[in-house]
Amino acid sequence: MANELVGACIIGQSGGPTAVINASAYGVIKTALESDCITRVYGAAHGIKGVLNDKLYDMNQEDAYELSLMMHTPSSELGSCRYKMADPDVDDTDYKRILEIFQKYNVRYFFYNGGNDSMDTCDKISRFMAKSGWECREMGVPKTIDNDLYGTDHCPGFASAAKYIATSCMEITKDACVYDNGQITIIEIMGRHAGWLAASAKLADTFGSGPDLIYLPEVDFDMESFIADVKRIYDEKGKVVVAVSEGIHYADGTFVAEAKTSATDGFGHAQLGGLASTLANIVRERSGVKVRGIELSLLQRCGAHLASQTDIDEAFLAGKVAVESAVNGETGKMVAFARETSDGNYHCVTKLLPLTSVANFEKKVPLGWITPEKNQVTDAFVEYVLPLIQGEPRLPLEHSLPRYARLKKILAK
Amino acid sequence: MANELVGACIIGQSGGPTAVINASAYGVIKTALESDCITRVYGAAHGIKGVLNDKLYDMNQEDAYELSLMMHTPSSELGSCRYKMADPDVDDTDYKRILEIFQKYNVRYFFYNGGNDSMDTCDKISRFMAKSGWECREMGVPKTIDNDLYGTDHCPGFASAAKYIATSCMEITKDACVYDNGQITIIEIMGRHAGWLAASAKLADTFGSGPDLIYLPEVDFDMESFIADVKRIYDEKGKVVVAVSEGIHYADGTFVAEAKTSATDGFGHAQLGGLASTLANIVRERSGVKVRGIELSLLQRCGAHLASQTDIDEAFLAGKVAVESAVNGETGKMVAFARETSDGNYHCVTKLLPLTSVANFEKKVPLGWITPEKNQVTDAFVEYVLPLIQGEPRLPLEHSLPRYARLKKILAK
Repeated sequence: MANELVGACIIGQSGGPTAVINASAYGVIKTALESDCITRVYGAAHGIKGVLNDKLYDMNQEDAYELSLMMHTPSSELGSCRYKMADPDVDDTDYKRILEIFQKYNVRYFFYNGGNDSMDTCDKISRFMAKSGWECREMGVPKTIDNDLYGTDHCPGFASAAKYIATSCMEITKDACVYDNGQITIIEIMGRHAGWLAASAKLADTFGSGPDLIYLPEVDFDMESFIADVKRIYDEKGKVVVAVSEGIHYADGTFVAEAKTSATDGFGHAQLGGLASTLANIVRERSGVKVRGIELSLLQRCGAHLASQTDIDEAFLAGKVAVESAVNGETGKMVAFARETSDGNYHCVTKLLPLTSVANFEKKVPLGWITPEKNQVTDAFVEYVLPLIQGEPRLPLEHSLPRYARLKKILAK
Repeated sequence: MANELVGACIIGQSGGPTAVINASAYGVIKTALESDCITRVYGAAHGIKGVLNDKLYDMNQEDAYELSLMMHTPSSELGSCRYKMADPDVDDTDYKRILEIFQKYNVRYFFYNGGNDSMDTCDKISRFMAKSGWECREMGVPKTIDNDLYGTDHCPGFASAAKYIATSCMEITKDACVYDNGQITIIEIMGRHAGWLAASAKLADTFGSGPDLIYLPEVDFDMESFIADVKRIYDEKGKVVVAVSEGIHYADGTFVAEAKTSATDGFGHAQLGGLASTLANIVRERSGVKVRGIELSLLQRCGAHLASQTDIDEAFLAGKVAVESAVNGETGKMVAFARETSDGNYHCVTKLLPLTSVANFEKKVPLGWITPEKNQVTDAFVEYVLPLIQGEPRLPLEHSLPRYARLKKILAK
């Protein structure tokens, strides 16, 4: 084979974890362990930091059954990081160190499992390696509950979070409407710039009981219209359930939640949070009604027990295809999904996108899927998301509690 | 049969809902519909308020399959209320009205499904009816996630909430420990005066990954000891996960959360909440570390998808036994549970307790199950709770989302 490249591989995970990012890592690890071209499989401890710190786990020494449990283990089993790589043209210190580690372990394949920022990191490493002359193939494996990666129909991790949100919103709505005296409930859902997750609350309403109103960051938020919307439904039904995206903002771009905190993460993004209680306080003051704010917080991104089996399978597929494509000569690409429905059923097919076309772009909910009143999403969104959340995970249990992977994490010498 | 009493029955639900209170109501409704002595089954809309307002649903007109879905439908399907009944010796207006409704519909059986306050209501009605000369049998069907009802080994609703909390704490701990830089996570769990729910976080730690520290309202909370505990574990592991009961209080009885809100519910209980963010702010200021507060909020009490099948079955049993006992002549009692383990396995057997002995007492976590450091619970608690959370619910799904009961709720004439 003309493209044959023999050597070790590294898989790293980065950014905020999801319920299925480990299924992708397992897709990489299992396929790599079975590949004739890949001599050794290393897991980077805490993403690229594990490479920089020479902290690599030897995955060849792991038990096959425990590795397989990664299919149902939430969070990033190898550890994650939020580490912004410098532009290699400005400061190549980190890149030289990475090259040194690649050479030390004869790493010829690098798989990076993450979201926007991780694809940017993977792209920079790929370009540096190409220039350096060290033959190595870099592939991005997508991950993000936010569903905001450019060029792919959807992202692994999104559907499981959407299913968690839909189910939880159904349950909350059942609970929040139990008394005969009025109550207003405001549910805060993750999503800084894209509203895919908050929009998923629509599923609860379509198929049972869910929020009356949904506000997304794709459109400007207006406090007076919001109060009027809530009041109108309260007057009609005596109860209101609202879903809001953490990233809703006023017309001038200010986040509605911003006043609450000024902390930022490693990438300089403002850390949002506390929006539900902020809005609850405002609505309580303006209405005199009992208002409860609920933040789904980390629960929505780590709820593996409520994952979509479709999402798990696709997450695994993304990792598998990344390895197969790299072994076949591809590099500098991210695995992406396309939707195939010509027979009337949903099928997911993979494609490869240049990392440069993915990194640092954000895919948002189409404006046509948001109602003109800017307080709900349309059935077109439901049609889009419904096939993605199908299938119940066969989560291994012990004592009726989840049994997660227990890896040995033996450091490579 | 000497005790034979023929007439209609009313089932009402009261207080905060749970994941399995509808299984109890279904136990009452199904058994009553099948009973020869019970001529008609009415569901009171919003508990005792439905009786006072002559708003009774005719359960005989419901579809049997939809009724059966109550086994997996969270919240109180008939609606709930928080309505404090006056002492009948002081003001018997409400009781006279209830008697009028009982006579109008020939109600000879009254089943009240709720917690402490509901047992008090049921007891008062029972005593009034006995005095009034209207032959009627009143039975309490226990419900409370708080597990604080006196005289019963455990309460329907508790185990499902405990399982939700244990699973969610496992998932949160996986997520919260993913980065290599430090993070402290504080999880707020329901429980005003009894710490059974917060203690359930121990299951996560015992069987996977869970909170390092647990604080219950059974013992006094000391802020300096808490900060020292957190600091010690942070210095050791670089990450800390803490579970706190919403009702933790200082030695003088002041709730730690109290400063945040002064709202009260219908019974004059202080409405707690916001404790997680209060503690997170304090720890952040004192440690300089990133701290996240997470409130499990309503999710923990309505998480039917993660219910314990043992709990569902026992909740149904409690309703069934209440009807059977009343038909056999019992009145003024609550169905309670005893634990039978003589063959080494867990079995739940029912017993009847006088309502007067149950109402307004609170059962707390034994002090011997709390560590001397007041920051964890012992294995004795795990032994107690583990059998209760066993079994996965066969939750009916449509489109991979829960399919709840859809009752017609036709008002009785």
